Amino acid sequence: MATQSADVIIVGAGLSGLIAARELQRQGVDVLVLEARDRVGGRMYTIKNKKSPYVDLGAAYIGATQKRVWKLIKEFDLKAFPTNEKEDLIYYEQGRVKRFRTIFPPVGGLLSWLDMNNMLRKFDKMGAEIPLDAPWKAPHAKDWDRITVQQFINKNAWTRAGRYIISDSVRLNNTIGPHEVSLLYILWHYRTVGGIHLINATEGGAQECKLVGGNQQICHRLSDQVGHDRIILGSPVVHINQMGNDVIVTSLPGLKYKCNQVIVTTPLSIQAKMSYSPPLPAHRNELIQRVPMGSVMKAFAYYDTPFWKEKGFCGSANVNDKDCIITYTMDNSAPDGTTPALVAFIVAENARRAILMTKEERQQRILADLAKVFDSKLALSPTHYEEMNWSTEQYSGGCYFLALPTGVLTTYGPILRQPVDRVYFGGTETATQWAGYMEGAIQAGERAARQVLHAKGKISEEEVEIPDNDEETKSKRLELSFMERHAPSVPGFFGMLALTGLVATLCSKL
Amino acid sequence: MATQSADVIIVGAGLSGLIAARELQRQGVDVLVLEARDRVGGRMYTIKNKKSPYVDLGAAYIGATQKRVWKLIKEFDLKAFPTNEKEDLIYYEQGRVKRFRTIFPPVGGLLSWLDMNNMLRKFDKMGAEIPLDAPWKAPHAKDWDRITVQQFINKNAWTRAGRYIISDSVRLNNTIGPHEVSLLYILWHYRTVGGIHLINATEGGAQECKLVGGNQQICHRLSDQVGHDRIILGSPVVHINQMGNDVIVTSLPGLKYKCNQVIVTTPLSIQAKMSYSPPLPAHRNELIQRVPMGSVMKAFAYYDTPFWKEKGFCGSANVNDKDCIITYTMDNSAPDGTTPALVAFIVAENARRAILMTKEERQQRILADLAKVFDSKLALSPTHYEEMNWSTEQYSGGCYFLALPTGVLTTYGPILRQPVDRVYFGGTETATQWAGYMEGAIQAGERAARQVLHAKGKISEEEVEIPDNDEETKSKRLELSFMERHAPSVPGFFGMLALTGLVATLCSKL
Repeated sequence: MATQSADVIIVGAGLSGLIAARELQRQGVDVLVLEARDRVGGRMYTIKNKKSPYVDLGAAYIGATQKRVWKLIKEFDLKAFPTNEKEDLIYYEQGRVKRFRTIFPPVGGLLSWLDMNNMLRKFDKMGAEIPLDAPWKAPHAKDWDRITVQQFINKNAWTRAGRYIISDSVRLNNTIGPHEVSLLYILWHYRTVGGIHLINATEGGAQECKLVGGNQQICHRLSDQVGHDRIILGSPVVHINQMGNDVIVTSLPGLKYKCNQVIVTTPLSIQAKMSYSPPLPAHRNELIQRVPMGSVMKAFAYYDTPFWKEKGFCGSANVNDKDCIITYTMDNSAPDGTTPALVAFIVAENARRAILMTKEERQQRILADLAKVFDSKLALSPTHYEEMNWSTEQYSGGCYFLALPTGVLTTYGPILRQPVDRVYFGGTETATQWAGYMEGAIQAGERAARQVLHAKGKISEEEVEIPDNDEETKSKRLELSFMERHAPSVPGFFGMLALTGLVATLCSKL
Repeated sequence: MATQSADVIIVGAGLSGLIAARELQRQGVDVLVLEARDRVGGRMYTIKNKKSPYVDLGAAYIGATQKRVWKLIKEFDLKAFPTNEKEDLIYYEQGRVKRFRTIFPPVGGLLSWLDMNNMLRKFDKMGAEIPLDAPWKAPHAKDWDRITVQQFINKNAWTRAGRYIISDSVRLNNTIGPHEVSLLYILWHYRTVGGIHLINATEGGAQECKLVGGNQQICHRLSDQVGHDRIILGSPVVHINQMGNDVIVTSLPGLKYKCNQVIVTTPLSIQAKMSYSPPLPAHRNELIQRVPMGSVMKAFAYYDTPFWKEKGFCGSANVNDKDCIITYTMDNSAPDGTTPALVAFIVAENARRAILMTKEERQQRILADLAKVFDSKLALSPTHYEEMNWSTEQYSGGCYFLALPTGVLTTYGPILRQPVDRVYFGGTETATQWAGYMEGAIQAGERAARQVLHAKGKISEEEVEIPDNDEETKSKRLELSFMERHAPSVPGFFGMLALTGLVATLCSKL
């Protein structure tokens, strides 16, 4: 017997689930949101600590072209501030510090730059062939899905820099090793964001801003709108039972909820946590076994003084050093400069190494890395240390999001957003713009809600996808320079040299 | 409040779980087995149909060197019979039928044979470097785990035959595409079985025998011994809650069971179906998202006459034809020749294509394939048709077993058999001999039970692994011929030719 009923039950009170709930309520549909954790927000998780009134342990950055997020920020009258990159960035490689101010670090000399530039350009060029809503239909989909990003790198890079720039981007933005992930998937993912420059950029890019008060506020405001009595915390869903026109949803505490439709907004791998009656179709049963989440830890070190700024560093550093376990750092001070802090990202293979350490060992390693990178012993003595390991989160599976192995996207991609009878699928993993980001969570939540509205006869099929006049997420501020667009690749450069030599030789003979 | 208590709760009443239960009972430990399905046996599933008193929809074959399985067969006084390969086998390629009697089909001419032979030899030679119980410690573990089998093929094969022989073996024995799976994992897997010849062979190999009455009998007999009141069917486990010395296990029907230890014997991906308190350690939480099962359907066609035998065919056929969806066939008649039948295997990519057809379409396609391969219209008119699609099984995830993507084995291998406090792990996926087979299920079930016995102080640490004087699973009957051991590879062959030419030229100059 059902404990409670609703028109629609939404699984997951992260951003995607809450947006879906609100969208449905706006059309007069009665919803209940079941959330596994004892809080809303999912991968948006803001806490306070003894040094800071707020810190984002999860999603922290707001991208320049994330229109849906900016709209919510405006609606809720929240305040964003630019991520600090006023001073120099650092490229740290095997003990050496290089200062820079560009999106990508200065790895090596001219040939390295040509190779990096060519790799980046190639990545975006290949990405441009891929349909946002159907990457499996790209002309080379099958070939690109059969190889890993590592294979692409091995085949195309001529220099250490060319190899580094792509693998670093994948480790940092996808929290996975380039040998673990399908090339097609990463090409498509970067395209949903607006390109490899945008995903890596702070100003004008994916890391442009942060929210005063932290991102989880957005979910709290949405919860207020949806109604706290409509959100049931501490209720992991264990069973979705479709029987005729009814769906009975059972939670781990053993309560049963009756509804007409379900929207599941959890990460895909977390959908394996539930039993289904009737069982899921074969492809979906296979899909949810092939959708690992990336591996990342965030560590925060608070200090009395922003010692990095005193040296002219903004706090951002690319760390390319096999003796370090941190891969990237950024300034995490409050916008007014109080509570000086650095955040360090430990990603992919390094996250898995870091997991095996005790918290004390790990803290020491991370602080020692910071001391090396910023060349200051002050880094060793923080006034407070905070860390979050997303890989222990059984209801997220990891962070930031999905990392598909070879062969999965072309085989199972077409069913990602396909309802199973009365069960619909949201969540940022199913987005076609900014997949894996807050923006994608909103897009996917809206779309899933509107699929249900269509099923209920409240809107037409054409109205399911919210029209978007500016489909491209590209950032105008990040347009490539003439050199970036036209510089030759490494073999092209040598070809030019040879040609120049030939012409010179010919001319000298005249 | 707990409904029932036991010393140890075992999750899964497949072969591994039942063996573990019996092993514990023999030492006076009180057990309860919780099984998700309404039957025991897991991937061992024997039904009867209107044409046959038994048919194995799941695990069907008993390998020559599966000592533990043979011991059980003897103990239960069951009867095995040789898989029929008395007549010719078929190699079917793009419309042409070739007869053969060897383990591997005759693809192409001399160069093809040299290349195939070299690929097979290379596979076993590389496999021999890999420790059975710690493949991540192999000298080249990291390199081999970073590439797919497809990459290995691309790099090493010189001919179409060389490419086919490895990819066909992976599709057939691992039910996965060679581009979806780690090279290290497959090399290791074949080593646990005794080599690539053994895994592919019928006589003297993995498919040597079948059981009169079907394999599920073994599980039924074990259930009788364990006691039907100790096995609770229809009870998917949704929560494992470790609290001090107690573990509380909750099933989907909402019942709670109290125990001191738990042994989980489900496939690894099915372990994602449960919630854990405290949450699983990070590595295990990541592992269970990275452990897809292969894709396979078995189809059975029953006929009035064994028309294939009348043409001198035993019923076994390698099908290498892009227009066919079947990849392998075998005779499935009763041992006395009554109820003539063929079984067709639809594997990997083809299984996923076949899923999308209606049952009628699929049946027609499969029968049409049989008609082509056996060159007989009689194949089109079976007296009965039966099929089993393991990919819809939410408590198996697929069949036959685990197919690890790149990077997983080296990263997470070391925790496969590592208990999480009071939770232990069995199941054929955790075996070190015949992993993925019934033999592996027994080995792993025994080992998990003995880990628990050791934790209870009933046996010493040295007694956990049951000593096995004959560690190698190699089959003496399958020793390679002189030619197989010494024939050159394709480049070696051309080198020899060149050398011969050189010597001849030199001699002619003398």
